[in-house]
Amino acid sequence: MVSLPIQDLLPELTSIVGEPHVRTDDEARRVYGADALKRGYPADVVVFPGTTADVARIVQLCAEHGVPFVPRGAGTGYTGGAVPLQGGVVIAMERMNRILEIDEQNLIAVVEPNVITADLQDAVEKLGLFYPPDPASLKQSTIGGNVAECAGGPRAFKYGTTKRYVLGLEAVLPTGEVIETGGKVVKNVVGYDLTQLLVGSEGTLAVITKIILRLVPRPPFQATLRASFKDVSAAVAAVTGVIRKRVVPAALELIDGESLRAAADYLRDPSLAPYGTGAVLLVEVDGTPDAAAEEAARVEEACRAAGATEILRARDEAGRQDLWRLRRELSHSLRTVAALKFNHDVVVPKGRIPELFALVERIRAAYCLRIPCFGHAGDGNIHVNIMVSPDDREEVQRAREAEKVLFEGVVALEGSISGEHGIGFSKAPFLPIELSPDEIALMKRIKHAFDPRNLLNPGKIFPA
Amino acid sequence: MVSLPIQDLLPELTSIVGEPHVRTDDEARRVYGADALKRGYPADVVVFPGTTADVARIVQLCAEHGVPFVPRGAGTGYTGGAVPLQGGVVIAMERMNRILEIDEQNLIAVVEPNVITADLQDAVEKLGLFYPPDPASLKQSTIGGNVAECAGGPRAFKYGTTKRYVLGLEAVLPTGEVIETGGKVVKNVVGYDLTQLLVGSEGTLAVITKIILRLVPRPPFQATLRASFKDVSAAVAAVTGVIRKRVVPAALELIDGESLRAAADYLRDPSLAPYGTGAVLLVEVDGTPDAAAEEAARVEEACRAAGATEILRARDEAGRQDLWRLRRELSHSLRTVAALKFNHDVVVPKGRIPELFALVERIRAAYCLRIPCFGHAGDGNIHVNIMVSPDDREEVQRAREAEKVLFEGVVALEGSISGEHGIGFSKAPFLPIELSPDEIALMKRIKHAFDPRNLLNPGKIFPA
Repeated sequence: MVSLPIQDLLPELTSIVGEPHVRTDDEARRVYGADALKRGYPADVVVFPGTTADVARIVQLCAEHGVPFVPRGAGTGYTGGAVPLQGGVVIAMERMNRILEIDEQNLIAVVEPNVITADLQDAVEKLGLFYPPDPASLKQSTIGGNVAECAGGPRAFKYGTTKRYVLGLEAVLPTGEVIETGGKVVKNVVGYDLTQLLVGSEGTLAVITKIILRLVPRPPFQATLRASFKDVSAAVAAVTGVIRKRVVPAALELIDGESLRAAADYLRDPSLAPYGTGAVLLVEVDGTPDAAAEEAARVEEACRAAGATEILRARDEAGRQDLWRLRRELSHSLRTVAALKFNHDVVVPKGRIPELFALVERIRAAYCLRIPCFGHAGDGNIHVNIMVSPDDREEVQRAREAEKVLFEGVVALEGSISGEHGIGFSKAPFLPIELSPDEIALMKRIKHAFDPRNLLNPGKIFPA
Repeated sequence: MVSLPIQDLLPELTSIVGEPHVRTDDEARRVYGADALKRGYPADVVVFPGTTADVARIVQLCAEHGVPFVPRGAGTGYTGGAVPLQGGVVIAMERMNRILEIDEQNLIAVVEPNVITADLQDAVEKLGLFYPPDPASLKQSTIGGNVAECAGGPRAFKYGTTKRYVLGLEAVLPTGEVIETGGKVVKNVVGYDLTQLLVGSEGTLAVITKIILRLVPRPPFQATLRASFKDVSAAVAAVTGVIRKRVVPAALELIDGESLRAAADYLRDPSLAPYGTGAVLLVEVDGTPDAAAEEAARVEEACRAAGATEILRARDEAGRQDLWRLRRELSHSLRTVAALKFNHDVVVPKGRIPELFALVERIRAAYCLRIPCFGHAGDGNIHVNIMVSPDDREEVQRAREAEKVLFEGVVALEGSISGEHGIGFSKAPFLPIELSPDEIALMKRIKHAFDPRNLLNPGKIFPA
């Protein structure tokens, strides 16, 4: 831990952003020191810059004094990426929340980092445009946070994750310089691709202060259906069938029996988990009404061929929202299972999802744990939720051991230990399961090229 | 220039790859020392590895002796990226040319670097799959070269450039270690995105030895049309109209009057450049037959509204190939204008294409040069071809001055000096027009993190 010369910094921080925008009260230190991982460390100071110039001056001041600093969006991350592990200054971006430009002719939006994802989507959809990335947290999370973590969501199978939409960035380097990467053009091969290096770097390479995003036309129509299966293998056979029929759904979500039962309890609707249903697929195709109808028919065929026991198809927007409700409420529903969730966003080649579920089944049995699973079957990205009672220390210990077995198994299936949430500090000890020492050493040299004194968001990604 | 201890290296190189795969004859040194830029430097030795282990041992040997080395694909690059500026060892990848795997279930292909782009496309299209990137050189260029340069092509507007399809790489670091980046999953946020950092790094960060590519379903149908306009502004108005109608064509190619006249001369078909036609758009939409027909109708409307003087629509595949012939023959056609082409792949936000053409017009007049232009209007990526007679030293000099004015003008239009071809060494002096000293310094630190002794492909990207 760093001993912060906090008295030295406060007058200068105040002179940069103004007194109302510097907070050292206990509540601020606690709230801005934690995120959705729920393992916080208190910040020493929380500052709220209003401009890029503010951010650059704050960073320069921290660099001058050797004080660690951590940028922060909405704090919805699951791996502690925004947590100030070594104290220091939290740079909370919430005042930098403007949509600066929506350029219909060039299909581009320019935003400050703290624009809420759903707000941007609403603004562009009014113009017939579309910003596809849809993390579950989209009503709270920010574009800046989405970029730092490379957020995904159900639509990623068809539309790709956040990285596919980031054309350019403005960012403050840990040494205080302001750089611009990429730009308002969809093609740019001048020098190294700093844009994509910063996307998903979890706030460890630079503080992002402006984002240029690519937009696409809004798909005019969605067709949505839900298919039930006796088990996960049958549901995955349907996924394979959909792909063999060369359909790329906008969403292809898989929900296992344990998750269904939790949702049925939480929503007090036993029909959501009828006897004999071990898995559900939620599928949405989009495009022109004709094309979507034709694709939906092919999806239905694939589901029937794989032995679907029931297929429901939304007749209208209300019906569509009804089908999606189950998926949207899953995270909340899991609270009925246990109070604490170790939510792992592992990913495998989609053909290997049955092997992933077999692995989870072995872990359930061996460690005596409740592990409801659901997620983005099209991407092979399954949320494996290890549920524990925080007071049951033995159960928590078993869960910790199970995590490691899960990660090793996933990597053995040619998969990855994180498809969406990043490493933060909660997964940092497991990095060597997936990456070789040479690869980690190279990444550390890259970190050093940006942040030679390791002041920006220290303690993240790399094992201690 | 390095004085190569060539006698020391040859026995070891031979022991690594075998005698037939080491060449020091003048022809090999010359041929493998040049690319499509036509400004070659002779290699000292050309080696042809057969495996990743071969590459690693060659790199280790060069590193041990401080000898520069340059990886090489098909040598179709326009900026000298594969040219061994300081001599040394050219690592010619041509024996590593196998398609290792096409995984239909997971929509993935795994290839060695020297697979010809068109060969991969043919192989996956037979299975109803699609690898979209289509650089003009696709019948010669290799996937490894495409990845190193982040190749584009007409389909990039709808489908994106090479980078959107690269999921993972195997590569040999300049210090000899073999690393793997990404993998067979479409989502992976574990550590920094080395995959995208290597894509487009022009063979300056690592030697790529294996590539994991994402595939998509092959679009079942294309509708193709050609619209003529009195000038470029009218054609760009049609492009804007197409975008306002929320159509994303698979290709949206613009050809100016000077290029049309060259093609008409070369193909001996005066009808290609009728009097009063100052620009042509070639538009292709794809999807299901119904969806493509509907989108083609919207494109036709937009072209008529912008004042198209003629619209031709392909009735069948033969008609489609006929419309594409003009576009495909453009590069060859320019030979009728002059023997030497300075081919600049500048890019601007597409709404600013008229300003780009106005800039080119000013340059034509001020420097008395012939500058036919054509390219990917959807991306704002226009090939500005400054044509010169190599023997006319004064004209060559004027062309050199014009280049700089072009690049400065493009950057002032919020554009980029290269959308497809990269910097290599021919554009390296112009890098500071687009990037700030801080940005260049950061990129150099990244280069150093990979290649501390600057042995891999030295002299590229960065100004001397």
